[in-house]
Amino acid sequence: MTDRQSGSSTAGGDGSTDPAIPAPETNLDVLDEALSDADAVAFVHVGDRFDDDLRYLTRFSGPDREYAFVYTSEGGVLCAPSLFEAQARREFDGEVRTANAGDPAGVRARAVLDDLTDGGTILAPQSIPHDAAVYLERGGYDVASTDAVAAARAVKTDAELDCLRRVQRAAAAGMRRAEAVLADSTPEGEELRWEGDTLTTERLRREVNAELAARGATDAGNTVVGAGPTCADLHYTGTAAIRPGETVLLDISPRGPHGYYGDLSRTYVVDSDGGWERRAYVAVESALDVALSTVEPGVPARTVHAETAAELAAYGFDPDAAEGEAGFTHGAGHGVGLSLHEGPSLREGTELRPGHVVTLEPGVYDPERGGVRLEELVVVTDDGCEILGEYPRSFAPREE
Amino acid sequence: MTDRQSGSSTAGGDGSTDPAIPAPETNLDVLDEALSDADAVAFVHVGDRFDDDLRYLTRFSGPDREYAFVYTSEGGVLCAPSLFEAQARREFDGEVRTANAGDPAGVRARAVLDDLTDGGTILAPQSIPHDAAVYLERGGYDVASTDAVAAARAVKTDAELDCLRRVQRAAAAGMRRAEAVLADSTPEGEELRWEGDTLTTERLRREVNAELAARGATDAGNTVVGAGPTCADLHYTGTAAIRPGETVLLDISPRGPHGYYGDLSRTYVVDSDGGWERRAYVAVESALDVALSTVEPGVPARTVHAETAAELAAYGFDPDAAEGEAGFTHGAGHGVGLSLHEGPSLREGTELRPGHVVTLEPGVYDPERGGVRLEELVVVTDDGCEILGEYPRSFAPREE
Repeated sequence: MTDRQSGSSTAGGDGSTDPAIPAPETNLDVLDEALSDADAVAFVHVGDRFDDDLRYLTRFSGPDREYAFVYTSEGGVLCAPSLFEAQARREFDGEVRTANAGDPAGVRARAVLDDLTDGGTILAPQSIPHDAAVYLERGGYDVASTDAVAAARAVKTDAELDCLRRVQRAAAAGMRRAEAVLADSTPEGEELRWEGDTLTTERLRREVNAELAARGATDAGNTVVGAGPTCADLHYTGTAAIRPGETVLLDISPRGPHGYYGDLSRTYVVDSDGGWERRAYVAVESALDVALSTVEPGVPARTVHAETAAELAAYGFDPDAAEGEAGFTHGAGHGVGLSLHEGPSLREGTELRPGHVVTLEPGVYDPERGGVRLEELVVVTDDGCEILGEYPRSFAPREE
Repeated sequence: MTDRQSGSSTAGGDGSTDPAIPAPETNLDVLDEALSDADAVAFVHVGDRFDDDLRYLTRFSGPDREYAFVYTSEGGVLCAPSLFEAQARREFDGEVRTANAGDPAGVRARAVLDDLTDGGTILAPQSIPHDAAVYLERGGYDVASTDAVAAARAVKTDAELDCLRRVQRAAAAGMRRAEAVLADSTPEGEELRWEGDTLTTERLRREVNAELAARGATDAGNTVVGAGPTCADLHYTGTAAIRPGETVLLDISPRGPHGYYGDLSRTYVVDSDGGWERRAYVAVESALDVALSTVEPGVPARTVHAETAAELAAYGFDPDAAEGEAGFTHGAGHGVGLSLHEGPSLREGTELRPGHVVTLEPGVYDPERGGVRLEELVVVTDDGCEILGEYPRSFAPREE
C-alpha cells in the first residue's frame, strides 16, 4: 500500500464499507464535563490508528503514524496528516487542520492550543505518548490525566449496538462454519479426518477466518481454536491434530463495521463418550444461564463473576483455579466495543448500566483432559440483558 | 475471548502458528551500542500488542494492555501480565518477571531498574506512554529518547526475510483470486457481472480476504480495492460497482507469520479499449522496471523515488502531482516489516543497505478516469534487489 493509504484500508477491511450502516457518532459532552470538573481548558490526545480512544473520539480510521486531536469549548480539531485530509474531512465531524503537517503531532496540538486557549491545564489520557506531553509542557501547559474517555466508551449508543450486532453475526457465521466442518469430519483411530486430511486446530481456524472475511469482517488475529488439553492452555497457538471425543473450543473475536469487535465462544465434542467433557459442558452451560439471569442494571459487575463461579462450584469445579490447574481459571467477562477488552470488567465493583456490552464466558479446564467455554456477548437493557447475534448452543456439532 | 487470551490470538491469527517457520530472533547488540553512546544504564519501553517496537524487541505477541521491557547490560527483562507468564516464557528469550503484576507497567519497569541499576539515564522510544516516563522520572531516572530500535528494524535478518516471503506468497494467492474473479466476470452494459450479481469493489475485497485467511494470513484491515475514478481516491472505502474498461486497482497488505506484513499491488482492466488506461499501465510498468534496476546498496533511498518519478514524467505524466490531481501523487515506496510502514522511506536520504526491505510502487491517477499502480516488495541484496514472492504482471486478468 502507498504511504498515504493506510487509513483507507483500515476503514475498508474492517467492514466500514458496509453501505447499510452509518458510522456511529460520538457525543463529546463527556469531554465538556471532564474539562469543567478539572478546570481545564482543553483535552488532547495523540496516537495512531491502533489507538481506540482516538478512533472513538474522531471516528477517523487514520494512518499507522501519529496524529492529534484537540478539544476545547469551541469543539474538536483534528490535526490530520496532510495526505489524509480528504479522508479526515469525510470521517471526522469537526475542524480538520493540516498546517505544519511535517511537525510531530504534539507540536501541532500545541499550535492549536496556542491558537484557541490562553494557556492552563490540559487533560489527556495517561497513555498519551511522552514526547507529545513534553511538547505541551514545554509550551507552558500543565498536563493532567483523565479517564473520561474510557468511561464514556463503556456505555454504547444504538448506532454502536448496530455495529456490534453486525460483527457478532459474522462471528456466528464463522462458528457455523466450524460446526459444519466438525460435523462433516470422521473419526479414524486417534484423529479426526476432514476432506482427506487430518483436521488440525490450524485448519479449522483458517476455515473460520475465511468465513469471517467473506462476511466483510476481519479475524484481526483473534481466532482461538483449542483441542483437548490445549483448550486448557489459554494461550495455545499450535497446530494440534483434533481427536475424537475431546473438547474443541472456539473463541471467535472478529473486527467489523467501523472497528467494533464481536466475541463468541462455543465448545464441541465429536464422537463423545460422555465423561468429563459432558459434565464440564453441563456445568458451564448452567453457569452461563446463571450469568445471563444475573445481568441487570444496578448489579455490581463483580456479582456476575461471583454468581457464575458459584454455579461452577456447585457442579464440583474449583471456582478460583490458577492457570494450569483444573477449574475456572479466568474472569467471567469483560466489556467489548472498539477494543476487544474494555470496561466494564466483571471483576470490578462498577454497577452495570443499560448500554454496557459485556461478554459472559464461564469455562472450566483440566490440563490433562480439555476445556469447555461458552460465551455470549450481551448488552445490558432496562430490565436485564439482550444477547447480541444469538447463536445456538450444542455439545455435538450440528450438520450444515 | 477471555481476559487472558488476547495474546494467544494474535500469535494464532497472524500466522505464527505455522509450524514450519520459527520466530526470528532479535539481536539486541543495537541496544548495547545505544546505551554506550548515550552513557545510559538501561533501555525501557512500555506498550501493548499493537506496539511493533516491543514485538521486535521481545517477540512476545502480548495482550491488548500495557506491559514493560527493560534492557540492561545484564540482558532483557519482560514484565509480563501475570496471566501471560507461560506465553511470555515461551516467546521471550530472556528473564520474565511477574512481580506486582497489578501495578502500572511503568512502575514495574522502575522496580526492575531499582533492582538492576544504581540510577542514571534511561533510553526509551519517544512514543513511550507518558505515565510510564513520569513513573521513571519520579524514581530519579533521566529519560532520554532513542531511535535505535527503528534503525535496527530497517535491516532484516534471513529469518525475517523468510517470514516476509511467506506472507508475500499469501498476498500473491489473494491477488490470484482477484485476477480469477475478474477474468471470470462478464461485461453487461455498464457493469461487470460475476456469479449472477454485480461485481463490486467490496465483493472483490471479500474474495481476496477469504483467500488470505485460508492461507493463514490476516488481511489486517489493509486490503484496498478501487475501480475507475475511485482508484484515484487513495482513501476510497466504498462499494462501487466495477465497470468494463476501467482500471481495477488492488493493493493487498496482509499480516503473516510472526507479525510480518506483505504488500503487493496490481491493476487490471476487463474488456479494455486501450486509451488512457493502457498508456498509464505502460508508463507505470516502465517506471517499476526503472525502480527495480535503481535499487542497490549505497544508493540514496530518495534516488529511487526520483528515478521512478522521472520515468513517469518521460511518459507525459506529472511526476509530482498533489492528491486529487492527475499524475504521480505519492512516494515511490517505504520499508515493510513488523509494521506496514517503517524505515527506510524512499523519500529519505538514507543509503540503501543489504537487508532493507522496501516497496516499489509507481502509480498514476486521473480523478476522472482511474488509476494504475504496480507494486513489488523487494529486499536489497549485495548487488541489486530480489523480489519477494514474485507474481506475474498482466494488464488483462488471466483466467484460473
